[in-house]
Amino acid sequence: MATTLISAGTVVSSTGRREVDVLIDGERIVALLEPGSTVLGSDLRSTVDTVIDASGKYVIPGGIDAHTHMEMPFGGTFASDTFETGTRAAAWGGTTSIVDFVVQYPDQGVLDQYHAWHEKAAGNCAIDYGFHQILSDVQDSSLSAMDELVNEGVTSFKLFMAYKGVFLSDDGQILRAFQKGASNGAMMMMHAENGAMIDVLVQQLIAEGKTDPYYHGVSRPWQAEEEATHRAIMIADLTGAPLYVVHVSAKQAVEQITAARDRGMNVFGETCPQYLYLSLEEQLGAPGFEGAKWVCSTPLRSRAEGHQDHMWRSLRTNDIQMVSTDHCPFCMKDQKDMGIGDFSKIPNGIGSVEHRMDLLYQGVVEGRLSLERWVEITSTTPARMFGMYGRKGVIEPGADADVVVYDPNGHTSIGLGKTHHMNMDYSAWEGFEIDGHVDTVISRGTVVVDDGEYRGRAGHGQYIKRGLSQYLV
Amino acid sequence: MATTLISAGTVVSSTGRREVDVLIDGERIVALLEPGSTVLGSDLRSTVDTVIDASGKYVIPGGIDAHTHMEMPFGGTFASDTFETGTRAAAWGGTTSIVDFVVQYPDQGVLDQYHAWHEKAAGNCAIDYGFHQILSDVQDSSLSAMDELVNEGVTSFKLFMAYKGVFLSDDGQILRAFQKGASNGAMMMMHAENGAMIDVLVQQLIAEGKTDPYYHGVSRPWQAEEEATHRAIMIADLTGAPLYVVHVSAKQAVEQITAARDRGMNVFGETCPQYLYLSLEEQLGAPGFEGAKWVCSTPLRSRAEGHQDHMWRSLRTNDIQMVSTDHCPFCMKDQKDMGIGDFSKIPNGIGSVEHRMDLLYQGVVEGRLSLERWVEITSTTPARMFGMYGRKGVIEPGADADVVVYDPNGHTSIGLGKTHHMNMDYSAWEGFEIDGHVDTVISRGTVVVDDGEYRGRAGHGQYIKRGLSQYLV
Amino acid sequence: MATTLISAGTVVSSTGRREVDVLIDGERIVALLEPGSTVLGSDLRSTVDTVIDASGKYVIPGGIDAHTHMEMPFGGTFASDTFETGTRAAAWGGTTSIVDFVVQYPDQGVLDQYHAWHEKAAGNCAIDYGFHQILSDVQDSSLSAMDELVNEGVTSFKLFMAYKGVFLSDDGQILRAFQKGASNGAMMMMHAENGAMIDVLVQQLIAEGKTDPYYHGVSRPWQAEEEATHRAIMIADLTGAPLYVVHVSAKQAVEQITAARDRGMNVFGETCPQYLYLSLEEQLGAPGFEGAKWVCSTPLRSRAEGHQDHMWRSLRTNDIQMVSTDHCPFCMKDQKDMGIGDFSKIPNGIGSVEHRMDLLYQGVVEGRLSLERWVEITSTTPARMFGMYGRKGVIEPGADADVVVYDPNGHTSIGLGKTHHMNMDYSAWEGFEIDGHVDTVISRGTVVVDDGEYRGRAGHGQYIKRGLSQYLV
Amino acid sequence: MATTLISAGTVVSSTGRREVDVLIDGERIVALLEPGSTVLGSDLRSTVDTVIDASGKYVIPGGIDAHTHMEMPFGGTFASDTFETGTRAAAWGGTTSIVDFVVQYPDQGVLDQYHAWHEKAAGNCAIDYGFHQILSDVQDSSLSAMDELVNEGVTSFKLFMAYKGVFLSDDGQILRAFQKGASNGAMMMMHAENGAMIDVLVQQLIAEGKTDPYYHGVSRPWQAEEEATHRAIMIADLTGAPLYVVHVSAKQAVEQITAARDRGMNVFGETCPQYLYLSLEEQLGAPGFEGAKWVCSTPLRSRAEGHQDHMWRSLRTNDIQMVSTDHCPFCMKDQKDMGIGDFSKIPNGIGSVEHRMDLLYQGVVEGRLSLERWVEITSTTPARMFGMYGRKGVIEPGADADVVVYDPNGHTSIGLGKTHHMNMDYSAWEGFEIDGHVDTVISRGTVVVDDGEYRGRAGHGQYIKRGLSQYLV
Repeated sequence: MATTLISAGTVVSSTGRREVDVLIDGERIVALLEPGSTVLGSDLRSTVDTVIDASGKYVIPGGIDAHTHMEMPFGGTFASDTFETGTRAAAWGGTTSIVDFVVQYPDQGVLDQYHAWHEKAAGNCAIDYGFHQILSDVQDSSLSAMDELVNEGVTSFKLFMAYKGVFLSDDGQILRAFQKGASNGAMMMMHAENGAMIDVLVQQLIAEGKTDPYYHGVSRPWQAEEEATHRAIMIADLTGAPLYVVHVSAKQAVEQITAARDRGMNVFGETCPQYLYLSLEEQLGAPGFEGAKWVCSTPLRSRAEGHQDHMWRSLRTNDIQMVSTDHCPFCMKDQKDMGIGDFSKIPNGIGSVEHRMDLLYQGVVEGRLSLERWVEITSTTPARMFGMYGRKGVIEPGADADVVVYDPNGHTSIGLGKTHHMNMDYSAWEGFEIDGHVDTVISRGTVVVDDGEYRGRAGHGQYIKRGLSQYLV
Repeated sequence: MATTLISAGTVVSSTGRREVDVLIDGERIVALLEPGSTVLGSDLRSTVDTVIDASGKYVIPGGIDAHTHMEMPFGGTFASDTFETGTRAAAWGGTTSIVDFVVQYPDQGVLDQYHAWHEKAAGNCAIDYGFHQILSDVQDSSLSAMDELVNEGVTSFKLFMAYKGVFLSDDGQILRAFQKGASNGAMMMMHAENGAMIDVLVQQLIAEGKTDPYYHGVSRPWQAEEEATHRAIMIADLTGAPLYVVHVSAKQAVEQITAARDRGMNVFGETCPQYLYLSLEEQLGAPGFEGAKWVCSTPLRSRAEGHQDHMWRSLRTNDIQMVSTDHCPFCMKDQKDMGIGDFSKIPNGIGSVEHRMDLLYQGVVEGRLSLERWVEITSTTPARMFGMYGRKGVIEPGADADVVVYDPNGHTSIGLGKTHHMNMDYSAWEGFEIDGHVDTVISRGTVVVDDGEYRGRAGHGQYIKRGLSQYLV
Repeated sequence: MATTLISAGTVVSSTGRREVDVLIDGERIVALLEPGSTVLGSDLRSTVDTVIDASGKYVIPGGIDAHTHMEMPFGGTFASDTFETGTRAAAWGGTTSIVDFVVQYPDQGVLDQYHAWHEKAAGNCAIDYGFHQILSDVQDSSLSAMDELVNEGVTSFKLFMAYKGVFLSDDGQILRAFQKGASNGAMMMMHAENGAMIDVLVQQLIAEGKTDPYYHGVSRPWQAEEEATHRAIMIADLTGAPLYVVHVSAKQAVEQITAARDRGMNVFGETCPQYLYLSLEEQLGAPGFEGAKWVCSTPLRSRAEGHQDHMWRSLRTNDIQMVSTDHCPFCMKDQKDMGIGDFSKIPNGIGSVEHRMDLLYQGVVEGRLSLERWVEITSTTPARMFGMYGRKGVIEPGADADVVVYDPNGHTSIGLGKTHHMNMDYSAWEGFEIDGHVDTVISRGTVVVDDGEYRGRAGHGQYIKRGLSQYLV
Repeated sequence: MATTLISAGTVVSSTGRREVDVLIDGERIVALLEPGSTVLGSDLRSTVDTVIDASGKYVIPGGIDAHTHMEMPFGGTFASDTFETGTRAAAWGGTTSIVDFVVQYPDQGVLDQYHAWHEKAAGNCAIDYGFHQILSDVQDSSLSAMDELVNEGVTSFKLFMAYKGVFLSDDGQILRAFQKGASNGAMMMMHAENGAMIDVLVQQLIAEGKTDPYYHGVSRPWQAEEEATHRAIMIADLTGAPLYVVHVSAKQAVEQITAARDRGMNVFGETCPQYLYLSLEEQLGAPGFEGAKWVCSTPLRSRAEGHQDHMWRSLRTNDIQMVSTDHCPFCMKDQKDMGIGDFSKIPNGIGSVEHRMDLLYQGVVEGRLSLERWVEITSTTPARMFGMYGRKGVIEPGADADVVVYDPNGHTSIGLGKTHHMNMDYSAWEGFEIDGHVDTVISRGTVVVDDGEYRGRAGHGQYIKRGLSQYLV
């Protein structure tokens, strides 16, 4: 097998940084070496197949985006990225693993859907991929499927408190699923918005003629998110299941999570780049139908109310543990534009899988996060949270050689005609400038992106059979 | 220089564990290697000078006890461990670094004392040592000394809110010192008890004839600790200095720290083994003068009030970040017995430097902490908190080879005639049984303890010139 | 009209106490007079029709029990007290007004039910009565009925988060009703328990053979109450409606109410005597089927968890504003015994309407409440909360002459063969001893209870047309 | 003795309002009567000496200003209002009782000062007056004086955490005084600012040339107030003494009080009109030396930080219980101007005794408070808090006839040439317009202000011998 030496870079972990050489043999890292040490008796630079000079650059574990929806069927259309286009875009951005959501709708079999997702992904992915399972209709069969799926490496299950008739589980169903999670060790994931409240508000707004994308945000107030978050926490408290709240956007929801953690509970929160950078006023409130670009749920929040700053701070202090993208892209043409004249018909979703590592690195540049925390929230914690640590999320002998060489002296301009490789006809991040650059991306020992050139291939990516969470306290 | 291979053990870091071989060359770790990997082209087991077989055992970064008082002068006597006896006992227990407190009393020069402490420690220590500086009387000269000391590697300064006339600084002095810390980056450490309140209570109790050791605890109620903790936090908030509260024992003090952290402040808390395991009722309240063994400040707290359980939980969830010992031993004879008939004359202190790693490991055995968290609170976080990370606190190429091989199948009985090597005529931990054992202790590449045999020497230990805290968020 | 002078007693209000003579003319109080004052030029004692000597006794506004369910239809049976028996028992206990709940089931018209309740009560009541309206199925017609009912003096509406198919409203329905309350000023009342969670737990417990009354408590954990309380608060926050949570029993629910009030919200909580005195362990856990006597919802809570003490304290400090009974009596024979072998079939309810004033007075005796607070929580606040103040809840000229003469030197033994006048074949309060006694009860100027003799009559009581809450801040 | 009938007005209490006639005989209220009732057999309007027609007006208990400093010696000068001028101005504004602070400086005897204050006040006051006692130097003699003073009707004692060498007590002294309060029932009052912190900041600001009045605010940050408030609460918690924090201005201090109250403690907070209406930016930051007009301690707070809105809300919801003025006037000429070039030399104080009732009534007009809450915070609660209730704070038979007729249709312009009767050469409230007017003021049965005419006299006012607090829960 081929050997690679990443030489002279600064390896960054979640706890610190140091100049260390990284030796890759085949698909795995086999050694970390003090640069210049001669004790091993050989000049590695001359014996390995490939030397990557990382001097002046950061060497980090490949990004893990634990929340994506490739080609997700929703409302009669599909998220516009396939596993092929989506994972390729991810690779371009320094992400070497995704965890995508298997969707089960009420009339579908849980395991059938799990197998269907395997079929969709197999042979198409540029990088490794795992699955979470969505349960939209908790029946006895769903509960037994949960045990089977844990054995298959699907150790996390997502429920919804919104989207009645589509995804929504009632509190009794949630309780039963959480009981199962408490017994088999699975992580329970929650879309925490009170759908019943939202449905009434949507109906009222539309009836009042308030149909612009802006009202999407109005129809999903922070009270609906705080409420559902607290409710999920109570069910977790009663059952003992670990809880992971997806795409947290409201500071009040964060406060509920913080309070639960202060009581010692295994309650975790994920946020997304959009909740750190974008707002109700600026993006959703853009003139005309422009705001549709940023229609996602939970919605962008008001900057005047301070959600974004609170989120950065919570991310810094581990009240929020990680950042995923909730990558769920829809094009403006033929997709988003279905909601012209009725915001509730706009497909919900933003595409960011390509930009997550860059956008968070910019937080380092701006002093909002430490370099180590960047690695932690984008790779190490996702790996631990979802049972991949050791193989993923860390640069250590024995780990998969998923490595990114990141240049702090590089620059990245984001936008449709720039770094954009996602299958979208617009960019939600148009105009963002990043003071850093993804130089080299290695997936299981193979260079897939090299200095602006894509060298990967569909089918390189393999299924990640995950274990139970390694982040429980 | 000699080479050592620690082979086949499970290396545990603060984020995970894995079977990795550790190669040491001289004083430092130079490589981590996948066991059995042949890519480096040599059979290391046969070429290195020494092979330590760690199969079935944990290989962890050497313990760091960031709070010791070797031969501290207090109340006319001295803590009974010298740097020689104390650091040797530490080594026995798997601790390879201490940070000791330079004491400045009001009539002494800060830098004079710093130099005096160097003289006391130099040539005597079995393991590496750093210094914090105690400031008992903040003058202009103290403030300028703070800058000098930061350059010397003393990057943390401890103030007292108790012990009037001995250590106590008033709030104006604290404010000025914190301002200095905010400007030069030093960590401000605080003994957070309201001394003025305590002094009145002591006087009243003694006047009422309540002179037994138990009343030491009564004289220092949790309100005095919560109060001072909050006060220190307010001064930190006003000045922007990072704050590290030492020997936290009251749950209400923890709650103040938690609340400050929830607001995003750089406020940290240390606890000690005695606040996790021992109590007011059981130990301080032992019959006769027996309780004097456990007279320390802050005092042991009531188990009925739940402080111990709250502390374990806070330690688990990182509301409390690390565990030090506050090692400050006094013998019963001629020292503790000075307080017969007047608890306020009992020298304050407990000796635990030898047992910290074991006592905390027992928390892992009992399900209170994860194995990774054990490493984090005993080594990795102390290293980061006090500017030693990279050299200490981690097993990585380039780090000092401070390594402990810990046997989870071993057993340790603690007590005066058992594992005890501290210079004390009693053990505060008599009768504690640990389901694990420190097998081998390596300090900067040298085996100092090997399977029950001490192979170290006074003078091996070197001064650690520390940098600024690497734990700030 | 007849005149009455209540002479020489200590009139107690919610803010203080004083010796004042109370002059009644017909149905109303017409003057308060300084005892012995001659400025009015007449010896009132000789000119009034009746003099009641209240020396050494407390003269208080008649009790208001704002939560009763007389002859309520539930589960195929009816609460065992009719308006006649129930209001008579109330009068015996010093309560001169009740507010009863009009029940609307899903297939019934809101206004039809309102009229039906008037028919049930008219001509039967010993004391005055008002109505709250229960809405079990919020439709457009319910919302318009709310406006009509406010004009009829029904200014408070109760919704349920439990009892699916019977009373439960979903969160969208609750939202719409709260919007109406915010617009017409009505108080929104909530039975705050998560029914969906409870239904699953009930089903599981029964399936496990856990059928004793004790499991009623287990099936309705505090998490279900905290959850629903928080959810109701969020909907109140979103809509701006005032919220009154009925029969709060869990300390965690109290904490949610306290937190909402700390944020300045108009959120109120009512508790009941059973949540102050009785417990899961002692009463619900009584041997055999005995516990059925205390099956009510919310359930009795664990004393070990400290709910009762927390409730007393919250009552003292106005985190909980008032005490009603939730009087809903069922006999053991033929009613409670329907649940032998299945706790979920036990009719829910406890009868206490007769004992509320005494039970709370005992709290004064035991130092848990001040005398003034007793008057406030049993009369003045209920009157203000539900728009009756001025006419009820206070001893002032112009107010209805609803007055109780209470003897602090008297004694009351509670139990089936003792003070019990409710139509129940057992007493939930058997054996309680009260260090005080209801001597004389006056309802709108008429003495209805006099020193152990009932002198009232069915039909004396009149409907109270209430205004909007006078307690909003 | 003369009789007066206040006829046809709306009597407002802390719980409600009603049209009631008030009959006064001599110094006291002797009856409340339903207007038009004939049961008493006489046409009172024709038999009383005086009839005051209050139709269309509010009849309220006279205001009680529980925090004044008449002719207080401070920093070489005296507060500019004497008991004569100050109480006269109070009467003009509808205040019929003050509680002034006896000042004890370190070298003075507590009881000597108490007697000296009696001499200053006797024969000079327009309205009734009581005393709090300031203890600046807690010695054994102070503690025994506390018992004597309680018997003299001085049942509240104020300590200071600021003003070293002048008023400051250390925490041990505070603890001892609080222990005494816990044993004799006295209310402990606290000036809660951390003086040691402030002294350093003042010194630093002056050294930096930041000498304008604005820096007075900067030198006393909210952290210093929150800190001291929490410290006082901890001492109250330890001792069991009731605590009343004077002149609370920072929202963070309010939050500490709220949290203590949520835990059931007898902790109370007073604010002043200046903290409701004025701000650091607008008033203290006025150009040049103008800001000196509003130099008081605690200082005005930043409006941008939201202290004022938070204070109004806390006042509404009883997290803050009452409003006093901290009336401590100094003229600009010869007094305030001592601080030109050094803000720390500006005498601290604002004069508001005349405007408190009006300024708070404006809060009613603006919807911030209910009418009842206005009466509660300006009269009823002050009377209960400080042991005057029954005699003061309420309109009831037997109470002192301290009554104000307030016209909601009147208007009051505040300012130096307008309603101003205080002995000050400026008004801190210049330009404030009030949509209401104090028409008639009656003190112990005597009309002292009547429709814009002062009819009182020095010496009418009598000493109020107070009892213990009637507000403890």
